[in-house]
Formats: sequence, C-alpha cells, structure tokens
Amino acid sequence: MTRSADARTPLSPTPRSTVTRSKERARSDRAELDAVLDAGLICHLGVLLGGAPVVLPTIYGRAGDTLYLHGSTGAGNLRAAMAGPISVAVTLVDGIVYARSAMHFSMNYRSAVVHGRAVEVTDPAQRVRALEVITEHAAPGAWSRVRPPSKKELAATMVLALDLTEASVKVRSGGPNDDAADIETGGVWAGVLPVRQVWDAPIGSADLDPGVEVPSDVLDRTDRTLIPVR
Amino acid sequence: MTRSADARTPLSPTPRSTVTRSKERARSDRAELDAVLDAGLICHLGVLLGGAPVVLPTIYGRAGDTLYLHGSTGAGNLRAAMAGPISVAVTLVDGIVYARSAMHFSMNYRSAVVHGRAVEVTDPAQRVRALEVITEHAAPGAWSRVRPPSKKELAATMVLALDLTEASVKVRSGGPNDDAADIETGGVWAGVLPVRQVWDAPIGSADLDPGVEVPSDVLDRTDRTLIPVR
Repeated sequence: MTRSADARTPLSPTPRSTVTRSKERARSDRAELDAVLDAGLICHLGVLLGGAPVVLPTIYGRAGDTLYLHGSTGAGNLRAAMAGPISVAVTLVDGIVYARSAMHFSMNYRSAVVHGRAVEVTDPAQRVRALEVITEHAAPGAWSRVRPPSKKELAATMVLALDLTEASVKVRSGGPNDDAADIETGGVWAGVLPVRQVWDAPIGSADLDPGVEVPSDVLDRTDRTLIPVR
Repeated sequence: MTRSADARTPLSPTPRSTVTRSKERARSDRAELDAVLDAGLICHLGVLLGGAPVVLPTIYGRAGDTLYLHGSTGAGNLRAAMAGPISVAVTLVDGIVYARSAMHFSMNYRSAVVHGRAVEVTDPAQRVRALEVITEHAAPGAWSRVRPPSKKELAATMVLALDLTEASVKVRSGGPNDDAADIETGGVWAGVLPVRQVWDAPIGSADLDPGVEVPSDVLDRTDRTLIPVR
C-alpha cells in the first residue's frame, strides 16, 4: 500500500481547488498535502443535505492517495457524503499574528482542502485495512494490540474513500505584514503568539484492571519533559 | 450589545440542526453553544460553490446571538456565503479515547455547528464593531492599542453576520464505551490521552523596535509555568 511521494498522483488543481486569495500561501507539492493530513487529528467534512452545505467534524485516515472516512451505516451525513460531492478540510493553527493595525491581524496555519466524490469501500479486506488506517491515525500503534472488529461491527460500519487528486494546500507562517507607515510610526508590539497541541498524561479508564500498564504507543506520544502529570 | 445568557435566543432545532447520531452527546443549553464558539480559534465555513460544498477554515467572532465572519470583498467563498445557505463548525478536540476494541476508539470533543443564511453587515458603525469582535476573538485586548481600520481597508472588507438560532452542540467526554465481554477479558489498556492547545512564548516581529515590550494582553495569555521560552 505504501508508495513513495514521487510515485504519488500530483495535485491537479481545478477551478475549485485553485487558490485565488493570498496565492503566495498556496503550496503545490503533494508531500505538503500529506504532511498536513497526517498532522491533523480531525477533519471537517462538508456534505450537501437538502441543497444546503452541512459541515461536520469527523475522524479520518490517509493511505497513499486515499483519504478514508467511516461512520455508522445509519448516519445521515455519510449517506449524504456518498450521494453527492463532498469537501474535506484539515486545518492546523500554528499561531496568532499580532500586527500594528487591526486589519493585519492574522493566523499562522497549515490547511488542506480536498474536493471530490466519495466511494464506498465494499471489499472486506480493504474495509478492515481502511479502519486500521483510521484507527492508527488517531492512535498510532494501537491497532495490533486491541480486539479487531467483529463481523457485526463491520456490518454496522460504512467506510468511504476519497481520492486526494483534487486538493489545495495553504500555509501561512512568519510575522505580520504591516504597512510601512505603521512600522515607521513604531511603538506598537507586533509578532506571533505560537499555539500548538500537547498531550497530557494518559488517564486510565475507571474500569481498567489495576495491573495493566500504559502501553508504550500511548506513553511515547506524550512529552514528559513538558507535560506535568495531573 | 451584551445580553445575559438567559435573555438570549434559545437553540431552535430544525431537522438539520437536530442531532440524530449519539444523541446522548447533544447539548441543548444555549450557554454551551457560546462556550464552544468562544473557546475555538477558527471555524470551518461550508458554502455552496457550483452546486458542491466547499469547506474553508476562517477566523470568526461572536457577539450575543451573532457570529461574524469577514474577508476580502474579492473572496469567492464570502460571495458564495452571501448567495446561499452556509454551515459553520467549530470543534475542539479534547482527547483520544483508547478502547479495548478497535471499533470503540473515539475522540473527546466539543463541537458546535451553525446553519443559516449570512447577511452582509453594511452599517458603518456595526461593521467596525464586527471587526473589533473578530479581532478580539483572535487577540483579546489588542483592538484598543492598535491602529483602527482605515476607510480604504474598510472598503475592501466584507463583513457577514450569521444568526445563532439554528445550531447544534455535541460534547463527548469520559472514557471508552467498551463491550462488557472485552472489559471482562481484561489485559488491554483503555483510557483517554488528553490533548489541549497551549501558547508558546511570543516571538517579536523581525522589524520590531527594540524598545517595545510584549504587551500584557499577549503575555498574560501564555502560561509561563508550563511553556518554556525558546
């Protein structure tokens, strides 16, 4: 399943995946799309419901050129996602950009938006593989040590695949783009307040056997030099 | 402009704002909607473009019963947002839920989804007030110490208002909902790996006057006991 970045389908901009505002923030390298998708925790899925767009947060995973989504077979949003065009956005906020003038305040971010039509994954082996990809995205290293899906669980689950061909990536980084006159006037602080996500210490389930230790795939994810145990 | 939570318009569920999956996660208290919107940094705006949903990350702000969005008058997404129905989602991820079985992995989150039609804000005073709300959402306390928008900047900016009446809030918290049989089998760690956003030390702009200190509204936002200065 693993392909090198070179072998992957390049980003193919269409009118809706072509960045029209702040073009200097657009990225055309396919590896940057993968990097944003792999760094995000959730995506925002846009579907059409009764002719109106509906945006819903959901879990996802990526393997090669495919983004996988899943949910209950009874979920209206997934049925809508199968019936029409969809849009999926993954955004990482990296900082608040403080400027010398109100209109130049901004955010530093990495953002990927994918457009297309989702296809239901029906092949049994591919379905299990897709669920592994989604689980490993949320909890890397966990799949192999937990109970795999039962036939009943699989029957109640819908898995969708979205091709990553039609996508755009935007990145903003660095300080504010203040007007020369405002910089010259001086006296006002300008810069970036960085923001990032950190893991806190894992909290064992209330019904956990006392003898079971936190596995390394969970513990290694936390940065124990930064995060105090509560 | 400020109203008490009691005086606010209650959440009025319509078919598209009624939670149909995992109903136990739905919240009906209007104050919970405000809390999620106020805690988020960005929203994901869903608009219709050429009959397809397009999801885009964008900055926002809330005042009372109104969500404000802004952008360039030339931005296609804002023009689309004015022309048809929109959906706005704000999601905060609070943790990864590790379960004893693959299908019970989940995320803890707080999520708000608003549906409706945006109205362009044209009244000059209300436009400036809306931009203040958006700026103060991203950078609380900054508006009063930076240069206000010029007439030229205001003319190039579109401000949209979205009523918060048609909205839904979902919250998941706590540990995994494992099957009794898997809990009884035992031996597998289960629990929550909490995640949260932290501010790092502010980075002054490269062209900042050496004498200008970091203002208290920026510095007070950082938690200096947790975040090492880089």
